[in-house]
Amino acid sequence: MVPRVLSAEVPAHVGERITIAGWVHRRRELKSVTFLVVRDRAGLAQVVLPAGPAPAEETVVRVQGLVVANDQAPGGAELTEAELTQLSGPACPPPFDLYRPTVNATLPTILDHAPTTLRHPLLRAGFEVAAASAAGFRTAMTAAGCTEIFTPKIVESATEGGANVFRLDYFGRHAYLAQSPQFYKQAMVGVFERVFEVGPVFRAEPHDTGRHLAQYASLDAELGFITDHFDVMPYCRDAVAGMADMVRERAEEAMRTLAATLPKVPAEIPHLHFTDAMAMISAATGEDVTGEADLAPAHERWLSDWAVREHGSELLFVTGYPLDSKPFYTHPDPNRPRYSNGFDLLFRGTEIVTGGQRLHRHEDYLAALAARGLDPAPFAGYLQVFRHGMPPHGGFAMGLERWTAQLTGAANVRQVTLFPRDLHRLSP
Amino acid sequence: MVPRVLSAEVPAHVGERITIAGWVHRRRELKSVTFLVVRDRAGLAQVVLPAGPAPAEETVVRVQGLVVANDQAPGGAELTEAELTQLSGPACPPPFDLYRPTVNATLPTILDHAPTTLRHPLLRAGFEVAAASAAGFRTAMTAAGCTEIFTPKIVESATEGGANVFRLDYFGRHAYLAQSPQFYKQAMVGVFERVFEVGPVFRAEPHDTGRHLAQYASLDAELGFITDHFDVMPYCRDAVAGMADMVRERAEEAMRTLAATLPKVPAEIPHLHFTDAMAMISAATGEDVTGEADLAPAHERWLSDWAVREHGSELLFVTGYPLDSKPFYTHPDPNRPRYSNGFDLLFRGTEIVTGGQRLHRHEDYLAALAARGLDPAPFAGYLQVFRHGMPPHGGFAMGLERWTAQLTGAANVRQVTLFPRDLHRLSP
Repeated sequence: MVPRVLSAEVPAHVGERITIAGWVHRRRELKSVTFLVVRDRAGLAQVVLPAGPAPAEETVVRVQGLVVANDQAPGGAELTEAELTQLSGPACPPPFDLYRPTVNATLPTILDHAPTTLRHPLLRAGFEVAAASAAGFRTAMTAAGCTEIFTPKIVESATEGGANVFRLDYFGRHAYLAQSPQFYKQAMVGVFERVFEVGPVFRAEPHDTGRHLAQYASLDAELGFITDHFDVMPYCRDAVAGMADMVRERAEEAMRTLAATLPKVPAEIPHLHFTDAMAMISAATGEDVTGEADLAPAHERWLSDWAVREHGSELLFVTGYPLDSKPFYTHPDPNRPRYSNGFDLLFRGTEIVTGGQRLHRHEDYLAALAARGLDPAPFAGYLQVFRHGMPPHGGFAMGLERWTAQLTGAANVRQVTLFPRDLHRLSP
Repeated sequence: MVPRVLSAEVPAHVGERITIAGWVHRRRELKSVTFLVVRDRAGLAQVVLPAGPAPAEETVVRVQGLVVANDQAPGGAELTEAELTQLSGPACPPPFDLYRPTVNATLPTILDHAPTTLRHPLLRAGFEVAAASAAGFRTAMTAAGCTEIFTPKIVESATEGGANVFRLDYFGRHAYLAQSPQFYKQAMVGVFERVFEVGPVFRAEPHDTGRHLAQYASLDAELGFITDHFDVMPYCRDAVAGMADMVRERAEEAMRTLAATLPKVPAEIPHLHFTDAMAMISAATGEDVTGEADLAPAHERWLSDWAVREHGSELLFVTGYPLDSKPFYTHPDPNRPRYSNGFDLLFRGTEIVTGGQRLHRHEDYLAALAARGLDPAPFAGYLQVFRHGMPPHGGFAMGLERWTAQLTGAANVRQVTLFPRDLHRLSP
C-alpha cells in the first residue's frame, strides 16, 4: 500500500513531506491559489495548490506535500508544495453538496443514491453507531456464556405465522424467508444452553411506516434453565448496557456529529406489569384503556415519560402482555394464565425489544396450537425438538436499526439502514 | 434463575449442598444404586440415587445434593443424598445414543435430527470452533480499521451472474437472494474506506458435493487505497491468524474433542503465481496443465503439500489466476492483462479464500462488461457508484463453514453447518 498518512495525523508531521489520499471534499479556486480539502476515513486535510482548475468534488486523489502549520486549516496544518495524482474520476457531481454541514436532500434522494450520499458525515455517523452497537451486543452475550449461531434464512414454513412472509422458489419447491431465528435459537438451547445470533430477518411488511422494514438486522438471544422471564430481563439489560458501552468506546465522535446522547442504563431497569401500566394510563388520561390487548404508540410514549419522571430511566420493561397478543410459543403466567411471561423494553417512547419465557413442554405446545385453532402439521419439525428434553427457557430480540434510530434520534429507521428494503424499494 | 452450579464447578463444592441442572446424559440402574450422569454446557456431573427407575436419557432435570469426593466420578466428585426434579419430559430416545463416545449414525440421520444429535459433544464441537472463528475474523478486521456493515440479502439483480441464484416474489415483483455482498462492500469502500461483513449468502448450487451449500456464512472484507492485490493479502493473513487465535482462546476444548490442530500462520504466508504453480505441477507430474484456466482439486492438494514441504506452511496464496476465470469486476494485471490481480488462499489442500483487486474506474467496468458480451443495463446501480470517485480497492471472502471443515477435518461441510440447506434439504 502507498505509505499514506491519515488526515487526522497530518498535524503531527509539520516540516515533513508526506502522502495523503482521499476524496476531494471541497475545492476553492481563488485568484492566486487553489484550496483543496481532502476527506478520508479519519477526517479532513487541507491542500494548497497553485492557482488553476482543481479536480471536482468526490474525485479520488493522492497528494504528496510538505506539511506546514496553519491555524486556519483543519487540525492546524496543511499540505503545501503539493503534487496531486488523480486515482479515479473526474467524478460526477453528487446529488447534493456533500461538503455542506447540513444535508439538503429528501430521504428518497438520499436512499436512491446511498453509495454516494452516505459519504456525508451526518449520514455516515448512524452506521458507525450501528456497527458499534452490534459489536457491543456480541460482547455482552459472549460474556454471558452464549454461543454464537448461524441459522438458515430459507425455511420450510413461517415460524411467526401471519401473511408477512416472502415466498421463494427453492429448487422447484416452495420455501420462505425466515421471519426470525425463533425456532432455531430455541432448538440450540438444547445444545448450548445459551445462544445468540446477529443476522438478517425478513418481513413482507405491507405497512409503509418509519418503523418497518422488509429486512432488518435482528439481535437475538435465548437462554436455558430460567425460572421465568424475570431471569431473562437482566441479560437483556446487560445487552443494552454493552451496546451503549461499545458506542461510547467506538463511535463517540459519530454520536457527537449527530448531537445524540447515550442513555444511562440502570443496574436494574425498572419494570411494570401491563395491567398496572394500563391502569396508570387510564387514571392519568381519563381514557379507559384497561381492556386493550396491546400498548398504542401514545401509551409507549406516556410510559417512557413516566419512567424518566419516576425512576430517572429512559428504559422501562413492561411485562405480562395479554397472552392473546403474543405468538403461540409464549409461556403464560402460571398465576394469571390470560397474561404472558413476556416483556417488552421501551426506550425513549418506543418498544425496542420483545422477549419472554417460551413454552418448553411438548404437550404445552400441542395445547397452545389447539387453543388458537392452528394445525400442528406445519410445525412438526419445531415440535419434534420438545420431545427430546428442553429446559425452561426464554430470550429476546432487538432490531438493530430501530435501536440505532432511537439512540441517534433518526425520525425514520431508513436513515440508519444501509440500503433499506420496503414495499417500494428494492434498490440500490 | 435457580442458583445453579455448573458441572465443571461441582468439585469445588465438596461438603456443600448444591443444585445442578441439565440433561440426563446417561443412567445406569444397578441393583443397589442408580447412577445418573447429568450434562450441562460445561460438561458432565455424576449423581448417586437410591436404586430404582431413573428418568430416560435427554430428560431435563434439576438435582439438589451433597457434593462428596469420588475419584471414579467425572471431575473427582459426585452428588449424593440427591433430590431430583424433572423439568421436562420424559424424553423420547434420540436417534442414537448420545452418551457413547462415538457417533453411530449416518450424516442424513444426524442432519434430519440436528436439534437433538448436535447435543453429542463430537458434533457440537465444530460449531464452537465456527463461533470462535467468526469472532476472530471480526476482531482482526476491526483492528484493521474496518467498519462492520449489514447489507441487503434481497437484491434486484444477480451480482455474481450465472444461474445459481434464488428467485423471490418481492411484493409482486421479481427479486433475487444475494449471492454475495460484493456490490455493497465495494460501494461502502466509498464511505468507510474499509469494511467487513459476516452474513449469509445464497447460491442455488445444483452440485451435490461435500463442499457446496445453498446458504453459507460469508466472511467478507474490502479495503480502499491499495496499490494492488499484494496490499490486500496481508489483511487476509491477519484475518486467518485472528481466527486461529480466537479458536485457541475460546474453543481449545472443542479442538481437543475433535483431535484437530490449528495451523501455524506465518507472518507472511508464501505466495506463488498461477503460471508458476502450473509449471511446477506439470514438471512434477509429467502432465501438461499450463493451458488450464483454473486449479483442479488435485492441483490444490499438490500445491498445499508443496507449501508444507518448501515453506513449512499449511497456508499458500496462489495469485494471478487467468482473468477469464474470474468475475467481470476483477482487476487485470497491468503487465500481463490475460492474468488477474486476484488471489486464492489454499489451506490443507482446499481453497478457502478468494480475493483480489477490483476495477475502480467507470470506463474500465464498461469495457470489462463489453469484453464479456454482458449487457450493462442490469448493472446500472452497481456502475453508478464508480461515477462518483472510487479509490483503487480490493478485498476477499471466506466461507465460514468451509474454513471450519478444513480446520476440524470434517469430510463434509454439512457436518459443521447448523442446519444445512442444499438441493435436497430444506429442513429442519
